[in-house]
Amino acid sequence: MLKVVISGCNGRMGQVVTSICEAEEGITAVAGFDVNTAKRSSYPVYAAPMEYQGSADVVVDFSNASALTPLLAYCVKRKLPVVLCTTGYSADQLDEIRAAAETIPVFKSANMSLGVNILLDLVRRAAKIVGSGWDIEVLERHHNRKVDAPSGTALMIADALSEALPYEPEYVYDRHSVRHPRGKQEIGISAMRGGTIVGDHEVLFAGRDEIIEIRHSALSREVFAAGAVRAAAFLASRKHPGLYTMEDLVASV
Amino acid sequence: MLKVVISGCNGRMGQVVTSICEAEEGITAVAGFDVNTAKRSSYPVYAAPMEYQGSADVVVDFSNASALTPLLAYCVKRKLPVVLCTTGYSADQLDEIRAAAETIPVFKSANMSLGVNILLDLVRRAAKIVGSGWDIEVLERHHNRKVDAPSGTALMIADALSEALPYEPEYVYDRHSVRHPRGKQEIGISAMRGGTIVGDHEVLFAGRDEIIEIRHSALSREVFAAGAVRAAAFLASRKHPGLYTMEDLVASV
Amino acid sequence: MLKVVISGCNGRMGQVVTSICEAEEGITAVAGFDVNTAKRSSYPVYAAPMEYQGSADVVVDFSNASALTPLLAYCVKRKLPVVLCTTGYSADQLDEIRAAAETIPVFKSANMSLGVNILLDLVRRAAKIVGSGWDIEVLERHHNRKVDAPSGTALMIADALSEALPYEPEYVYDRHSVRHPRGKQEIGISAMRGGTIVGDHEVLFAGRDEIIEIRHSALSREVFAAGAVRAAAFLASRKHPGLYTMEDLVASV
Amino acid sequence: MLKVVISGCNGRMGQVVTSICEAEEGITAVAGFDVNTAKRSSYPVYAAPMEYQGSADVVVDFSNASALTPLLAYCVKRKLPVVLCTTGYSADQLDEIRAAAETIPVFKSANMSLGVNILLDLVRRAAKIVGSGWDIEVLERHHNRKVDAPSGTALMIADALSEALPYEPEYVYDRHSVRHPRGKQEIGISAMRGGTIVGDHEVLFAGRDEIIEIRHSALSREVFAAGAVRAAAFLASRKHPGLYTMEDLVASV
Repeated sequence: MLKVVISGCNGRMGQVVTSICEAEEGITAVAGFDVNTAKRSSYPVYAAPMEYQGSADVVVDFSNASALTPLLAYCVKRKLPVVLCTTGYSADQLDEIRAAAETIPVFKSANMSLGVNILLDLVRRAAKIVGSGWDIEVLERHHNRKVDAPSGTALMIADALSEALPYEPEYVYDRHSVRHPRGKQEIGISAMRGGTIVGDHEVLFAGRDEIIEIRHSALSREVFAAGAVRAAAFLASRKHPGLYTMEDLVASV
Repeated sequence: MLKVVISGCNGRMGQVVTSICEAEEGITAVAGFDVNTAKRSSYPVYAAPMEYQGSADVVVDFSNASALTPLLAYCVKRKLPVVLCTTGYSADQLDEIRAAAETIPVFKSANMSLGVNILLDLVRRAAKIVGSGWDIEVLERHHNRKVDAPSGTALMIADALSEALPYEPEYVYDRHSVRHPRGKQEIGISAMRGGTIVGDHEVLFAGRDEIIEIRHSALSREVFAAGAVRAAAFLASRKHPGLYTMEDLVASV
Repeated sequence: MLKVVISGCNGRMGQVVTSICEAEEGITAVAGFDVNTAKRSSYPVYAAPMEYQGSADVVVDFSNASALTPLLAYCVKRKLPVVLCTTGYSADQLDEIRAAAETIPVFKSANMSLGVNILLDLVRRAAKIVGSGWDIEVLERHHNRKVDAPSGTALMIADALSEALPYEPEYVYDRHSVRHPRGKQEIGISAMRGGTIVGDHEVLFAGRDEIIEIRHSALSREVFAAGAVRAAAFLASRKHPGLYTMEDLVASV
Repeated sequence: MLKVVISGCNGRMGQVVTSICEAEEGITAVAGFDVNTAKRSSYPVYAAPMEYQGSADVVVDFSNASALTPLLAYCVKRKLPVVLCTTGYSADQLDEIRAAAETIPVFKSANMSLGVNILLDLVRRAAKIVGSGWDIEVLERHHNRKVDAPSGTALMIADALSEALPYEPEYVYDRHSVRHPRGKQEIGISAMRGGTIVGDHEVLFAGRDEIIEIRHSALSREVFAAGAVRAAAFLASRKHPGLYTMEDLVASV
């Protein structure tokens, strides 16, 4: 039974992590940390990490950047692996994280969704197989309030393709302005915007009379909580300190 | 039984029209015109229209623009409706067509695919219903040799949406270059290019937590032959001369 | 400005209706009814309908079946149109609703999602146009806890197709058990189950070398709140008492 | 420059192989075998393999089963690798193939499409990563004349998933007849039929609030020719005799 401590347990994502721990076999939440110490589930909630000295295998953090220092101190002291799902760290804090990773396993990933990281793994694999003979295009769809395009994840996908391909692709964002056939080494990247779409990413591999499409769709931001729990299980089984990412998790399979 | 005469019967599309007439009930090919008079099917083939004076209900033309004058003369003389599926007419020829349409029903459409025209009809209808509350985007995918983007059909779709919407939409071809949320009156138009994709068009209607997607995919250019046969049946039932299009056919249902 | 009274305003769906009224122009929530009278938004909340006698154009009800009688009495007395989004009415209550609809406009629909009803409208239209020449199939996808298959909405779609088609289709749920080509008058209905998919419905129209796909995807159950607000605006503009549905709303466009 | 000999060069698939060899760099067709010895391209055509003793790196066979014995004899004698794309071999002929594979590299695969084999590779990989936490479903779509359902390829996909998963899945073909939630170890397999769809296969991986879809679509049977050419390049670089498949090719990347 994997014993998880949830930092930020009374926030929205902390509550989702809680419900996943309750639903899944082989995993249980044993304690929570939160500035709001209301007890909302079966486990006790503490204002500060050091207050909990009971048994634990891993810490999952969905609090916020300002809580980092005491959390890392706690994990290092207790030799507990920690999954950091908070964002917005300062340069100094990133240094703190690297320092802690010399003593304990620390998990931190640009995108905590397992699905997006599987997508990255699959498109890398597909690109390696098709090599230079197929055309590759990326499409993403997001809600109408998103200000940037293409999404950061779409660019991560394009970069993953670039690494896997035998040529250096050119990213093309707008075909409206040109009037010539597709270049063999282009990767077209298109962005659609509308409604409340959480985030869809699709990669098209088009060969001679056949196509492969690989698509990831997120239905809510709760995917990050599911990814965090998966990361917790992965991290608890690491034997060495270090900084781990979703790419390591996926590659470990 | 609808009796069809096929002009350009020994060309690729003429042969597809032939096979559709053979496969469908209630329709039969009774004669063909072609510079190549080889008999390839059950019906006789003539080099010039006037050589055939047997019974007929409608003519389907997949020959080429240079054959227009004698074909129209024949149809006008025999009072036969004619479906023109050839492209590349000169301004003078377009005048000839309009003149013939004063005497006989003439069918001529920017896109002979029934499916594309159904798509146009459906997206017009959907745009009228959703009104100003939903976001609308157009996506098209074509083979890697296509030089223009977006496709003419994608622009026809956007224009059909414009007519149906209660506002004047702005077409947006590239979101890469901007950094702000989607405008409420935008229609994003994206183009993907790859492999041998014949032609896919998709319209996304995105509301609050729900989306509607309407997509047309062509698997080959043979769709124009099927559309032509459908147009032939429609045209043969028209009681008045005039210039008819796929939009009339779809609206007649 | 459309003045909306929200019955069940402090429930989950009542809160979504509130947020839509706050976000959209031309509409405002003026009062709420709820057994829990906590004031959560700009409008006052009353335990019983009769306590509010201020101005109002329409009532949207997301409370529950037990609250029906006093709500209808209130609406009838004040001549207020009412959108009923609650389910689980008894036969007697359905009689009450019909009786009220002789005095005031009442809106009640099997599916309150605008999108699903647009889908129904579009597939009816498409079926009429394609007639007997194309093959039609229905596919639905839902979460892994759903016990029935196919979904009620998928059957509504199949029935809408049946009404629109020139033949009486046969519904086919399993092709695994047979070994013959598809019958021309079949409608295949497939159900996929997985994860937390809220509800996707897709209709495939397959002709010769071209296909049309019409798909609706719900991202959350909040779509029913958006549909209710749309229904409120529709109902407030009705001049006559009667029982109205989403099909009337869509057909009114 | 890879020198390819095309057996069955004047058949439809042989001609497609020819056009691919003409279009791609680094590969050229140097001779053809066919009962019909008409010369249709740049290379000479022979009625019997032994008539060609010029230089060659690999043979691609799209003739038919009856031509097997002299073809294998030729390849064995000249130590030429051979890609067999013909089907319908007898048990004796399969023995002949195995015997030849002790001397030369022989390529023979249940499905010669590169895309389908990439799909198989990717879904195996995805199944390994998601493990037991996600629901997996298979959907295939084919033309209305196909008599069996699900397709052989859909079953290949399900079997590939079975090998990769940590549990023994149960294949479920019809959810219409049951009334309970989805079992955790089911793989639903759905088949849609309509029009002239050549062959689409899709695998859905549904987790908590996220889904991954991997889809392959064939636009024509020409995909087998492209796969054969790819196999020829792969086979020509093998150093050892043996029986190779598309799975080996994909795994070699």
